[in-house]
Parts: sequence; structure tokens; C-alpha cells
Amino acid sequence: MLMCRLLSPNLTRDAPYSYVSHGCTGKGNDQVRFELAFYGLKPDIKVVAPWRIPGLSSHSSPIMVVYSRRSAEFYNRFPGRQALIAYAGEKKIPVTQTTAKPWSTDENLFHISYEAGILEDPNTTPPPDMWKLTTAPENAPNDPESITIEFQRGLPVRVTVPSEGKEYTDGVEIFLALNALGRKHGIGRIDIVENRFIGVKSRGCYESPGATILRAAHIDLEGLTLDRNVRALRDQFTTVEFSRILYNGHFFAPEREFITASIPASQRTVNGKVRLKLYRGNVIVVGRESAEVNVFLRTEALSDNHSCRVFTMSINLLWMNSVDLSLLTPPVSFKSSPSGLRSTSGFINSDC
Amino acid sequence: MLMCRLLSPNLTRDAPYSYVSHGCTGKGNDQVRFELAFYGLKPDIKVVAPWRIPGLSSHSSPIMVVYSRRSAEFYNRFPGRQALIAYAGEKKIPVTQTTAKPWSTDENLFHISYEAGILEDPNTTPPPDMWKLTTAPENAPNDPESITIEFQRGLPVRVTVPSEGKEYTDGVEIFLALNALGRKHGIGRIDIVENRFIGVKSRGCYESPGATILRAAHIDLEGLTLDRNVRALRDQFTTVEFSRILYNGHFFAPEREFITASIPASQRTVNGKVRLKLYRGNVIVVGRESAEVNVFLRTEALSDNHSCRVFTMSINLLWMNSVDLSLLTPPVSFKSSPSGLRSTSGFINSDC
Amino acid sequence: MLMCRLLSPNLTRDAPYSYVSHGCTGKGNDQVRFELAFYGLKPDIKVVAPWRIPGLSSHSSPIMVVYSRRSAEFYNRFPGRQALIAYAGEKKIPVTQTTAKPWSTDENLFHISYEAGILEDPNTTPPPDMWKLTTAPENAPNDPESITIEFQRGLPVRVTVPSEGKEYTDGVEIFLALNALGRKHGIGRIDIVENRFIGVKSRGCYESPGATILRAAHIDLEGLTLDRNVRALRDQFTTVEFSRILYNGHFFAPEREFITASIPASQRTVNGKVRLKLYRGNVIVVGRESAEVNVFLRTEALSDNHSCRVFTMSINLLWMNSVDLSLLTPPVSFKSSPSGLRSTSGFINSDC
Amino acid sequence: MLMCRLLSPNLTRDAPYSYVSHGCTGKGNDQVRFELAFYGLKPDIKVVAPWRIPGLSSHSSPIMVVYSRRSAEFYNRFPGRQALIAYAGEKKIPVTQTTAKPWSTDENLFHISYEAGILEDPNTTPPPDMWKLTTAPENAPNDPESITIEFQRGLPVRVTVPSEGKEYTDGVEIFLALNALGRKHGIGRIDIVENRFIGVKSRGCYESPGATILRAAHIDLEGLTLDRNVRALRDQFTTVEFSRILYNGHFFAPEREFITASIPASQRTVNGKVRLKLYRGNVIVVGRESAEVNVFLRTEALSDNHSCRVFTMSINLLWMNSVDLSLLTPPVSFKSSPSGLRSTSGFINSDC
Repeated sequence: MLMCRLLSPNLTRDAPYSYVSHGCTGKGNDQVRFELAFYGLKPDIKVVAPWRIPGLSSHSSPIMVVYSRRSAEFYNRFPGRQALIAYAGEKKIPVTQTTAKPWSTDENLFHISYEAGILEDPNTTPPPDMWKLTTAPENAPNDPESITIEFQRGLPVRVTVPSEGKEYTDGVEIFLALNALGRKHGIGRIDIVENRFIGVKSRGCYESPGATILRAAHIDLEGLTLDRNVRALRDQFTTVEFSRILYNGHFFAPEREFITASIPASQRTVNGKVRLKLYRGNVIVVGRESAEVNVFLRTEALSDNHSCRVFTMSINLLWMNSVDLSLLTPPVSFKSSPSGLRSTSGFINSDC
Repeated sequence: MLMCRLLSPNLTRDAPYSYVSHGCTGKGNDQVRFELAFYGLKPDIKVVAPWRIPGLSSHSSPIMVVYSRRSAEFYNRFPGRQALIAYAGEKKIPVTQTTAKPWSTDENLFHISYEAGILEDPNTTPPPDMWKLTTAPENAPNDPESITIEFQRGLPVRVTVPSEGKEYTDGVEIFLALNALGRKHGIGRIDIVENRFIGVKSRGCYESPGATILRAAHIDLEGLTLDRNVRALRDQFTTVEFSRILYNGHFFAPEREFITASIPASQRTVNGKVRLKLYRGNVIVVGRESAEVNVFLRTEALSDNHSCRVFTMSINLLWMNSVDLSLLTPPVSFKSSPSGLRSTSGFINSDC
Repeated sequence: MLMCRLLSPNLTRDAPYSYVSHGCTGKGNDQVRFELAFYGLKPDIKVVAPWRIPGLSSHSSPIMVVYSRRSAEFYNRFPGRQALIAYAGEKKIPVTQTTAKPWSTDENLFHISYEAGILEDPNTTPPPDMWKLTTAPENAPNDPESITIEFQRGLPVRVTVPSEGKEYTDGVEIFLALNALGRKHGIGRIDIVENRFIGVKSRGCYESPGATILRAAHIDLEGLTLDRNVRALRDQFTTVEFSRILYNGHFFAPEREFITASIPASQRTVNGKVRLKLYRGNVIVVGRESAEVNVFLRTEALSDNHSCRVFTMSINLLWMNSVDLSLLTPPVSFKSSPSGLRSTSGFINSDC
Repeated sequence: MLMCRLLSPNLTRDAPYSYVSHGCTGKGNDQVRFELAFYGLKPDIKVVAPWRIPGLSSHSSPIMVVYSRRSAEFYNRFPGRQALIAYAGEKKIPVTQTTAKPWSTDENLFHISYEAGILEDPNTTPPPDMWKLTTAPENAPNDPESITIEFQRGLPVRVTVPSEGKEYTDGVEIFLALNALGRKHGIGRIDIVENRFIGVKSRGCYESPGATILRAAHIDLEGLTLDRNVRALRDQFTTVEFSRILYNGHFFAPEREFITASIPASQRTVNGKVRLKLYRGNVIVVGRESAEVNVFLRTEALSDNHSCRVFTMSINLLWMNSVDLSLLTPPVSFKSSPSGLRSTSGFINSDC
């Protein structure tokens, strides 16, 4: 997705070049994502993928017939990862992969991934020094750290870190700050077996420290501020289908436009603050607030009285599902909203 | 939905009245739709539904406590349909229901419904003179009639009726013209057992002549012009959930806004014409065309030659699913589109 | 699906042969369905598909490397449909396709399909003599014909045809009888643009006379006998996903087993009879009955009295959605069922 | 769900009693779950819920008309929680709730919940001494603990705890052992704002130590052993709908039977072991294995060689999605399975 955004200004239909190249093999998801992005931006672009060109035969697709016979030389010269690492060493080209760390990584602002090599056996525990972006929970500070994240329309707009005496409001700075906090507190490691686009299972390890913190806060705030039915639909359909689309690299496909069109409507009320405690791998929500939620009724008499208003609720249960309980509770003020039903005012004192 | 639109200008949060009334009983879907629309537009409105106020007891909801004891008089005076029909006769109030047609109807521009009375036994065939909006297929003309419907962004913008030498372009006129054509050719009757919102099964008969024609044409044009994945997502999620929302009267609920937000993105390419033949209950599509679809390749040599280009397709099947076959067929021109992938150009000569 | 069943006894993992062949080109869905069925039944089978082997190049997949150089001879000798038809004529091999009917057909017990040739232009109306399995609605009898179809657990077990004085109870005979009735009355033609598995749009015409009648009856009986929530889940998930699986030929895939596992639970209560009228392309339901549905309450006093019992219903709307209205109506008898809630007894006199 | 099972032997259609009672108020989910279970098991049972009977008015549902006027005495005598706690103190009835811990709890083998009282403000951090089933992560041991959980057909059948030198194989013992381990290591706390069945948002805190560990292990093993498409369908439909059904108390409804019918088919291959590290709130998967997964190809030459076999894979990508890569890799042995396609053999050396 990030790549798609980065490519957009450069790879256009009118771009004055005809070829792009990438170093993917034919096994992974990235080849698919790269090429679908290329084609999406410039449908007549031609892709050169040297490592997918076999040495002796000519199983080339029509797109690949642009390759001359010479291109087989790449495959013959570098049949695999070790040959490339050796070449890099010989030519003093700096690469992070070494024979000592026999796995493949991809790192960006959002995360790092590790796969292949010794990780292919799903029963092999990753060595401690594999993880690059986070400290191990065991080595994280013994003191929890409290932070606050504020969202507007579902987007993080302010991260307050009292221990640093700082606030972050710029998008990239927020991400960098949360990455640093996640790293410090051992947050965001996962180790899973996934199903790649091309049909094989693959074991991958990932670190995404800042994103893990953001996601925990965002989900929590949605619990407070998002309409129940919107959330259910979003979770079951939008989230699932959007994830599938992105995983498979269909960013420039019509269904991506279709799916994303409804997201802003789901985030209009996701405004508020979430207070978090970070501690040795844990992101613990300790409180959340939002001006979207109506004033609570706190009269002690009501709060201790189970039946009076409550029973009248049962009578109107059907309507309440749509109309909002606040209809029945005069002191509750409504937020203005294009839709008067249930939008963000469904919160009442549940012990009245 | 129509009612919701009609109500909007009149029933606002600031409207200077506090009560609305309706004549629904407590059994049907309409009471729910009416009241949810009322509450959605003016959450503090109070609803008076005389036929839901029982005579002797006081099972009244908090909303209903506004009723004075006198309101029981309505129930005692008019315990059912027959009493009201009798009253109307006595007072010379014109009503369409009679003792001779013992069922309930609702009629609007879109359709008419029949239920209750003798229709309650789902094994009772509706009497021929029940149907009001359409002739019986057996009595329809023996000559088929051809019409053309043109859509722009999924909306009907022109209906051409050669037999009348007329074209209709106004939305209401289109609907009226198609209603008349459907009536003439016996199109749009259904007889089903449905599940009402309040949890009971109910047998209903419906006529929706114009809508049946429009729907057949719209679905057909989508087959030609809509991206496969957008269509699949729209059919499985949007259509199902939007239908549920409307049936249950949740028009002013947040999830309606959420669901409808993506519809325009799905209809951007639904442009073109569908030719139909109307004949004794049948809506038969006899052809469709759209400028969204790329030029066909018609060279006979290609058309008869199964293998040449085709096999190269198999090689790239994965990509084709997203990238569009047109990548492989140079003469195909792309329409400009925010998303270059697959949008509307996936049509090739399937016999090349 | 039929083919999968037919193949099962013959193509097993231990079958003493290593190759199968088919005549599909590389454009259609059938190649996919055939080969996935072959591989599902005998994963190490090798498929020979002569028309996918190009003449001069060697774009062969690993599976295809079994082909000798000689196999290119097929492609060179028969580059397309016309060459094969000519060969068949020359060798006096009987084939139904002729130069005069330039399209492709597949016919089986369930349906026939027409595509390619002149049908490729989606705006070309199929010639009247293309349709093989049904008479045109215009040429069908002027007298409607009444039949009754009885279902047990969702399967048709008896078709009664008064005009013939016959009943059909055997599965195949039921299908043949309904095919003959559908043919006679012009039922079951469709003409659509579909999205093929391999990513292209394709115009296809189909006739499925018996299946169209069966489906209309089955859906109708489900309206009467199937729990609302089961039906909603079945329609949104099972139907959609099962269709996708079958269309793409994934019959032997794990998700097919997963999806079909719940179907019997959905059909347990689909028992009863549907009365139909067949008339010039129309399948008109004129009545349905089922012993699954509870006795109706027919007391006239109740039937005319809107409010008494009804209002108490509103009070319990929430529960009714799950518990079944029959709780409130003492004379209603329950059918025994593993699940007491709502199963098939949700039908009450809606005009009480 | 547990309650449903416990009730089953006692509350039958023929049970010789007509009334059950519960102490729920009209605000929560439990009233719904209790009553739907009662009605599901014995549809004519009558429910007495004293705290839903208001004191002065008579908003009683038909079910409730069985209450005598005397029942209002309960409400008048005990208008709320404090009055009941006071009464319990006076009568020396042991209750866990006190004025000092002003919230409501429900505890069972699976979890404990906390809500109401001071928790109603979603921004109030729960006091440390609220949590009953787990130690705080900060107070958990500084040494991680390793355990292994073995599953057969998706069910846990053996938990090995080396630190105790013990194995647990009985279902209840497994649960108790994992609860104790989760308690010790601070695992399984959550604090969320949820949407109750009756339409209001409610803040709840939960501890489910053993279940949290089991779920992490089960999901992980499914990653290794479950077919990708089965998993996707199960996650999107079965999981979501089953959760909704259970949350809303529709255990005895037909859709529960429908939804659960497919679960066994999804778990047939979920066999294997997951190794876990428990540490201060974290459940860390450190390895997993399963005999369902085919032998890995480890030849170093292959493992380092990216292109040879890989490119041939791209050619067949379409088939691989269904047929399984193992077709292309002769040394891979198939497990016997009703469905030959893809079932559990989709794992290959991804670095070949």
C-alpha cells in the first residue's frame, strides 16, 4: 500500500519508459504486489524479473518475451541467495543478509518481516538476535509507561508521552514515536504460519511495534464511539475484504475503490482519547473518553435502582435497537448527525 | 424509503409539534418503519398508534403513557377492520377495502401489496380479481413488445418504446411508462411467504410491474459492465445488508449511511443500453451494449484459432485475474479510470 | 458436479494409468473444472490438452513436458473449430456443430449452454433456432398446466402431473418429466454476460427447463418452512460460496466439504407441497402447504380484532424474534425438534 | 452455552413444573440468555423475574401477567443492589459483593466478568484489587514458563507442563491447569466497551486466563494445518455468526444447529502440538508441528536455487491455488483424505 502511494507520482500511463525490473523470485507475495501495482499504474509496462527466468528452457510468458536469450545468464550466474551474497561480498556491495543470518527480511516504517532459511521449519524457535525492531519482553523496562493517543475521525492526531514530556502530532512523528516506545517495551512481535497468495503455507515472523500500539488504541476507541451495527458490518465485510485485497496486491483494482468508499462513513464518530500502559510486550488500555458519548446519568438514586426505568426499556426493546435509548432519557443531549438514530448516543448509565 | 424522503422536509428536530399518529396495528412491518423514521427525524417525537392501545389493560410503553384513558375508546369502538369499514360506509368516507375483498393492500408508485384475510392460508390461490396493477399473463397481448432502456451510472435515463414512438427521460415518467408496459404484459406479480420483522411468517402477494422490468435490465447491464469482484462484493454484502436495513425500517441508522457510501463506486461503469422483449409475464433480454467495453477482436483467423493467444493466457492466469486480459491484446484500448486494473475492459473475443 | 460423481468410480489414486486427455481450449471454465477434478481424484495424473499446446513455441508447463514434440502436430493440423468440423465431415464423424450453427454447446441432463461464435457480441440476439431444449414462450400452449411438487428434507420426491394422469417419484424420472414440461411451456431460458474463472467476461445462453421449475418450487417451500435466520445465513454465505466453489471447479477441495456440511441441517424442515402453474415461460406458484407449519388460528373474532393479542406481541418483540410467537398462542402445537426455538412454528394468523 | 448444557437434563418439555425464576434486571444480556434457554427447552415455561416488575404501574407482558399484585412487593422492598446487600448482611446470607467493591461480577470455569458501579465510567481504570483470577503482569514471575498443548481435531487433548513434571489429558483438568498457569503469569485480562444485546454500550472487564492460552495455541495450529479457504470461510462466517448467536443467547435456535454443523469438517486436520512460552501477560508461540504437514524438501541445492522449479510454479499458479503445489514435487507424500485437493499438504520448502 505504501509502495503504491510512492509509485504513483512516478509510474504513470504517460511515463516515458517501457520497462521496470524487480528482484523477486517466483515464490512470494511481493512479486504479485509489485507487478499488479506496475500494471495498475501503467498497463503497458513490461516487467523484467531476472530470477524468474529459467536458464535453459523458455517458459516465458508473452510479457517476458521481451527478454533476450542473454537474460538466462543472470540465472546461470546467480542460481540462489548464497551466490548473490558472495557476489556482494566480492564487489563490496553492502547488504544486511549474511551467511550467519540465513533468512530473508523486509523492513519499512510499518514493520519488518523474517522468513525462509532456518525459519522454514515452523517448529524452529527464532533465535533471539533475529528480532531487530523490538527488545524482548524479558529485557524490557520493569516500569510500565503510560501514554495517551487521541484520534479524530479514526486517525491518530496526538500522542502524549509524559515520561518524555512530549507530544507528537505529525503523522510520521507519531509513527516513529510509537515505534520507539514499542521497541523499548517489547511490543509487536508475531510468529505465524500464513497462506501465501500463490497457494503455499509459509512461516513468517514480524515486528510492528508502533502499529500494534495504534491498533490496540483504535479498536478500543471504536468500542466506545462506533455504532454497533456499523462496527459489525465493517468487521465482517470491509476489514476482511480489504485485508484480502491488500494482501494480494489488488490496490489498484475496482474492488479496492468499492471497499474503501465506505470507510470514512465508519470513522466519523471515532473521536476521543485512549490511555494506555505499555509493559513488557503488553498494550493495556486503562481508560478511554470521547465527547461523542452522551453525558452519563449519575444520580445515585437512579444508579442503585434497577427496575424503574429499566423495565420500560424492555418494553421498547425493539425500538431501542435502532432508535437509541436516549429517547427515553430526557437529560441526554443529542449530537447533531445526518442520521438521528443511534449514532453515538447509545451510552447510558447501565446501572440506573 | 420513499416515505423517509417525503417526511424529511416536514418532520425535523425543530418542528413545532410533539405528536404524530398512524393507523398501523401491532402485527406488521409498517409500524416499525413509520416509527423508526419518525424517531430518526425527530427523536423526541411521540407516536400515537390507536390500534395498539388495548381497551382494558394498560400495557402501555413509556412513550404511550401520553395517551389519556380516553384513547381506549378507539379500541373499544373499532375492534377491527370490519368495524372501520362499516363506519366508513356509514359516514360515506371513501375506502377501497370492502367486505367483498377481504385483504389488506398498500399501493404506491413502486408496487402494491396484498396480505391478510383469505390470503393468510398460504395454500389459497389469490382470486384473479385481486390483482390490480397488472393484467394476467394469460390475458396479455399475443404480440411481444420491444423496448430499450439506457442507464448512466446505474440509473435509468432513457426508455425507448418504438410501439408508442416515444422516449421517456424523466425519472417519474420512466417509472410510469414502465408500470404501464408491465401492466399491459402481465409482468411483476409475486406470491411469497416472507418473514416479517416482528418474527412471524406472513404470506404476501405483490405487483411491481415497472420495477421488475427495470431490475431485469439493470442486472443484465451490470453483467456486461461491472467488474467481477465489485459485483461479487456488492451482491454478497451490500445488497443483502441494504435490503435488511430497508426492510426493517432502519433508513436513518448509521449502518445505512455506511452501506450506501460504496454504492456510487459500484455504478460508475454501469453505462449502456439493454434491449428487452416484454411478453406475457416475461422480461426477455435480447441484447445489450456499452461503450465501457472494449472493442472486440473480430478477425476471423483469430476467431477460429483456439490456441495461439489462448495458451499464453493460461500462463498468466494469476495476473489476468487482476490485471486484465487486455494487457495481452494490443489493439484493445483502455478507458481512463482511477483504477487501471480490470475496470471495464475485461472483455475479449472468447473464441480467438 | 455431475462429472465429479461420474469420474469418482473410475479415476482413483490407484488407477493403473497415468494420463488423461480433454479437448478444451485454454479459454473456458471447463478446462479448469476437468483438471481440478482429475487432480482431486488422482493427484499424480498427467493431463494432455492438445489444443493448449502451441505449435511453434514451447510454453509448456512442467505437467506438459510429457508431450513429445509431435504433439505440436495437433495444433498445426487443427488450428481451430472449422478445421475440426471439416475433418469430421471428411471422416464422416457425426458432430452436432456445423458451419451453419457457429457456436459451442454443452448439453446434459441439467442444462445446455451456448456460447462463442456469433454469440460473442452481447448485442446479437440469439437466432430462434439456436434454442434446443425449450420451445419459445410465444409458441408454447395457450393453456396453463398445473402440477404439484412434493419435497422431503429439501429434495423433490413426487411430481404430480394431472394432465398426464401421472406421478413421478424416481429422481431421474422427476428430472426428465420436469424437463419435458419446461420444454413444452417455454421455461428456463437465460441469456447473460458472465465472468469466467480465467478473468474474462463471456456471453452465454442457457436452457435449464426442469431445474428452473424445481428451483422456483424449492425456494417457495423454503419461504414457508425454513427458519428465517437459517435462510438468511444459508442465502448469504452457503449459497454464494457453494456457487463460487462449483463454478470454479473446486468440488474436491476442503472448503466444499466445509460448506456442504451444514446443508442437511438447513433442509430438515423443508417438507411439503408446492402447486405450480406453467404458462409460456412463467412458473407461477399458486399455493403451498406443509405439515411443519402449525395450525392456523381462524376464529373470526380474532381475525377481525387487531389489537388484543397483538399489542402484547409488541411488548415482547425482542423475545419473539427468537422464541416464537407460538408461545403466546396456547392452541398452537409444537413439532418436536432438537431446537425448540422458532424452528418451524413461527406462523400465526397475521390478522388476529 | 455452559448453562444451556447444564439446564438440558433438568428443564425438558415434560418437566412437571411451570415456573422458573431469575434475579436479572432488565438491563443486561443474561436475562435474554436465561429466558431464551428456558423457552428453548420448555416453550411453555413461565418466567418470574422479580426485578423486572415495577412497583406501581403494570407494564407487564402477557408472560408476566402470572405475577400477582403481591410481586410488586419485591420491587418496593429491594429497589436496588444496595438494599439487597444490606438484607443479605442482616440475614447473614454470604454474598461476595460488598459496598467496598461496587461492581457486579459473574464467575465460572471459563471467565469472570466485572461491570457496573465505578466501572461504568469507561475512563476509570479498574482498581488493582478488582481482578480476581489473575495476578497483574507486573507481579508475575520473572521467569518465562514453557508448556506444550496438543490438539486432536481441534480439541486440546494433552497439556504438558515441564516445570510441574505433569501432563493433563482430561478436559476439565486441562482447563483448570491452564487457568492456574494463566493466573500465575498474568494472562487473560481485557477491558472493553461492548454493545449489549438490548442496545446499549457497556464497559466490561474480563479475565479468562486458561481460555486465552488455549485460543492462542489453537489459532496458531490452525495456521499450520487448516486449509486456507476453509479458514477464510470459517473466520468470516462461522466465527462471526456463531459468536453473535451465543452472545445473544440463541443457543437453542435453528441457526445455531445450522452454523455448528460445519465445524467438525473444519477441524479434521487440526492435529498437532504447539509450544508456548508464558511470560507476564504474554502467550508467545515458540514452535508448532503437525503430522498433517508433508515432509519438507531440504536438499540444499534446491533450497538455494530460486528459479528452476519456481518459475514453473508461476505457470501453473491457477491450478496451484486449488490443486496443491505438491503435484509438482514428486517426493511429497499425500495424506489420505476425502478430498484430494490441497487438504493438508500445501506446505513446501519456500526457499527451494
